[in-house]
Amino acid sequence: MSLKGKHLLCTQDWSLDELSKILQLAEDMKKERWSNKYAQVLDRRTFFMFFYNPSVRTRQSFEAAATELGGHAQFLEPKSMRLKTKKSAGETIEDAARVMSRYACGIGIRILEDKIGAYGEGHKLLSEYAEYADIPIVSMAHDKYHPCQGLADMQGLWQHIGRENVKGKKLLQVWGHGALARSWCSVQESILISSNFGMDVTMAYPEGYDVDPEVIAKTKANCEANGRKFETSHDPQTCYDGADVVYSRNWMHADTYQDGEFQKAKEVERAMKHNNWICDTDKMKRTNNALFTHPMPIDRGHEVSDAVASSDRSIIYDVAENRLHVQKAIMALTMGA
Amino acid sequence: MSLKGKHLLCTQDWSLDELSKILQLAEDMKKERWSNKYAQVLDRRTFFMFFYNPSVRTRQSFEAAATELGGHAQFLEPKSMRLKTKKSAGETIEDAARVMSRYACGIGIRILEDKIGAYGEGHKLLSEYAEYADIPIVSMAHDKYHPCQGLADMQGLWQHIGRENVKGKKLLQVWGHGALARSWCSVQESILISSNFGMDVTMAYPEGYDVDPEVIAKTKANCEANGRKFETSHDPQTCYDGADVVYSRNWMHADTYQDGEFQKAKEVERAMKHNNWICDTDKMKRTNNALFTHPMPIDRGHEVSDAVASSDRSIIYDVAENRLHVQKAIMALTMGA
Amino acid sequence: MSLKGKHLLCTQDWSLDELSKILQLAEDMKKERWSNKYAQVLDRRTFFMFFYNPSVRTRQSFEAAATELGGHAQFLEPKSMRLKTKKSAGETIEDAARVMSRYACGIGIRILEDKIGAYGEGHKLLSEYAEYADIPIVSMAHDKYHPCQGLADMQGLWQHIGRENVKGKKLLQVWGHGALARSWCSVQESILISSNFGMDVTMAYPEGYDVDPEVIAKTKANCEANGRKFETSHDPQTCYDGADVVYSRNWMHADTYQDGEFQKAKEVERAMKHNNWICDTDKMKRTNNALFTHPMPIDRGHEVSDAVASSDRSIIYDVAENRLHVQKAIMALTMGA
Repeated sequence: MSLKGKHLLCTQDWSLDELSKILQLAEDMKKERWSNKYAQVLDRRTFFMFFYNPSVRTRQSFEAAATELGGHAQFLEPKSMRLKTKKSAGETIEDAARVMSRYACGIGIRILEDKIGAYGEGHKLLSEYAEYADIPIVSMAHDKYHPCQGLADMQGLWQHIGRENVKGKKLLQVWGHGALARSWCSVQESILISSNFGMDVTMAYPEGYDVDPEVIAKTKANCEANGRKFETSHDPQTCYDGADVVYSRNWMHADTYQDGEFQKAKEVERAMKHNNWICDTDKMKRTNNALFTHPMPIDRGHEVSDAVASSDRSIIYDVAENRLHVQKAIMALTMGA
Repeated sequence: MSLKGKHLLCTQDWSLDELSKILQLAEDMKKERWSNKYAQVLDRRTFFMFFYNPSVRTRQSFEAAATELGGHAQFLEPKSMRLKTKKSAGETIEDAARVMSRYACGIGIRILEDKIGAYGEGHKLLSEYAEYADIPIVSMAHDKYHPCQGLADMQGLWQHIGRENVKGKKLLQVWGHGALARSWCSVQESILISSNFGMDVTMAYPEGYDVDPEVIAKTKANCEANGRKFETSHDPQTCYDGADVVYSRNWMHADTYQDGEFQKAKEVERAMKHNNWICDTDKMKRTNNALFTHPMPIDRGHEVSDAVASSDRSIIYDVAENRLHVQKAIMALTMGA
Repeated sequence: MSLKGKHLLCTQDWSLDELSKILQLAEDMKKERWSNKYAQVLDRRTFFMFFYNPSVRTRQSFEAAATELGGHAQFLEPKSMRLKTKKSAGETIEDAARVMSRYACGIGIRILEDKIGAYGEGHKLLSEYAEYADIPIVSMAHDKYHPCQGLADMQGLWQHIGRENVKGKKLLQVWGHGALARSWCSVQESILISSNFGMDVTMAYPEGYDVDPEVIAKTKANCEANGRKFETSHDPQTCYDGADVVYSRNWMHADTYQDGEFQKAKEVERAMKHNNWICDTDKMKRTNNALFTHPMPIDRGHEVSDAVASSDRSIIYDVAENRLHVQKAIMALTMGA
């Protein structure tokens, strides 16, 4: 089973065996971080990072990943790239992708809400790059999915629950109020990969905060295939009952895009009214001594209380570290020498 | 013949033997890209890239070049550099260049139309850096010349025509209408290096789009020295007759600078009226089954039709790739350990 | 004596033995720059550079330092980082520092006057990072101190006076008028490290340009401990008498912060009136054939005349180069594998 040359836009596009191969390699790369075992994997190779949206964490972990494999990641901002659009002359994505394929071993792309006109446009852009590039396209978070985060989440569960014990555990994917109007991408990736690996999934959120129905349908199908349960709740208390893993995170309302653009201020105002939607110690008491996880950065005091985020059941820093390991594994298997 | 320490502002400043040495090494570097033959050439050395104007392609290829030679290229934007100007206090170029010579093995500089007040100022800036730096200054495209593009073009001809067959072939350097108000640099470099290597050169463009008379004079002198022809045409059809290589590209009118600044909007409006100046399949039929080339990014539908740009006679992606190889060769021979 | 894991916010926080260890290693690293002796010290490690304020020189020298040690420095601008502030939601420094500690071997931070509301806030920010990070925090210049510059200055004196001859020499730290409203950080670091290494120190400046009294108190204590003299002068001529080293540099008035922000224009206007405060050849004649030094970039014609800055007693380029060597030594000893 070779992953060489494969694009990664969503974990759901890959088989469970392929995802497991990434996670196993990520675990070994964590152990062998400073040995020479993987020191030449990207020897002198270049990985392009395209940040339509800036990001510190994602940039740090991808650039460090390339460095640790002996290669180099270039930080590129497409604002200095004259791409053809409906409104302006410029280069086609075909031309850009074909030339970049001559220089690099892979391309990461990040594009979120405020850089697109409607949900789905980011995914379409990545798909177009994938069509023309001869080298792998990896999502560094886009409007629909965030596969590297999903894999880092799952590596965290393997570490703290045990690889063989993840199946059958219950994930609570719960909305948190917050001032940052988050993308759906991390949350949608989380329920897909968790259901794919055999977890029960409960989505809990205030009425109206439904995410992409296509993703919900896929998640349900994953649960059915594994004989597991998918549930929806609008109760910020009872949804915690019996959870083994709590993943609390703000996400935006579907309406936020309705006027053809991303209206952050309006979205934050609406979200802040639901201030009973916060993961705190009392709610965590209803769980099965659940782990707490979050993709970071955390909006403490809104999405989750300080006490929970900094508790000994919180695995947030380990999951953040895992971004490095899974990204190294992805690069090694899809782009390696 | 050592090239160690030489500046490269224009291919015309170097001898034909020196240029050929670069091209021969570039060809070998293409073959040996991932072997260890050149893996230590810039071992732990730093190359500074100074982008007065941003660029994705040039940055990608220079940074990848340094990485592939075992070194590292730093992406620098002089906006964060307090240089002394007529209007403001700051550091002299002498001080900046002398200090940078202590840190790095070479400096690339890119400065185009919109960052200068008049044609020639960019070249003057590079010359001033070259006067004070103890390390090579390499143009990454400036208002007058683009030597790395010129060398990449020629490497493309060596690949597709054969090194020994370039002499005597006819280059058509033809203006294309377009919405991007291009610099003269790639075009001027192209006619200089082509005539230097013994090609016939035809410059074709609408009346008024003359380029730098000094460059034309040098090109004519090159042609004469080689016993070849230099011609000018203002006919967008007949200029194609008998061409072996067609290089279609927009370039701006000399007037664009006349008010002391670079007036892009006015220039684009004027250029778009000449919509019969496009390289298309019908015109290409007049040629000697010519190769099509372009420095990219291409303004498809204006400078050239999709059909020609994507035809099997188009060598645009190979030429773009050659940027990497010639830049590695330049770094190796002028800055290598 | 291990320096592994130590933060470096000011040279005064370290013992003389620790500072000497850095300088000795820096001298050896200068000699062995291109041998393999130190080629693996940061092998595949990542160093984060956080530029709240941009800088060309500091960025060039830190990034080159990491490259020469086999590692890689990432250029990061916190404007793309959503940190929590009094006014806006975002990530806490604790969370940011804990995650970065999982990715990198060290963090450099630069924050100067115009990015803070009052003198001391930058130092507080660095201290907060140091509290939560598991990896060393290194100042790349902040409002109070500039330890890497201080060490580079001292390495310059070791080179040009001799390590054993620095003690007992007289440093003139003299204000120069200028159009750039400089920070106190280089000057404060200079008088601290010079007095720490046993020099006499004279601070000379127009009335009103006092720096941080806490730094002056520490400098006096250093002088006393070494049996040396600390003097203050407001005479731009006689202050030069008997100096062995002249360090001429503009620094801002304490009032510049008084309205809660950094008022550069007002500061420059006030400074430019003191145009007899320039280091020139006549004044240098009063010295003991003093060396001239400056942290660069130099505002020639204001802080110092061209003749002095370019004289054979000027060590400015050597000191600039030393930034590279001392930063390599700091990285090696505090962060090395």
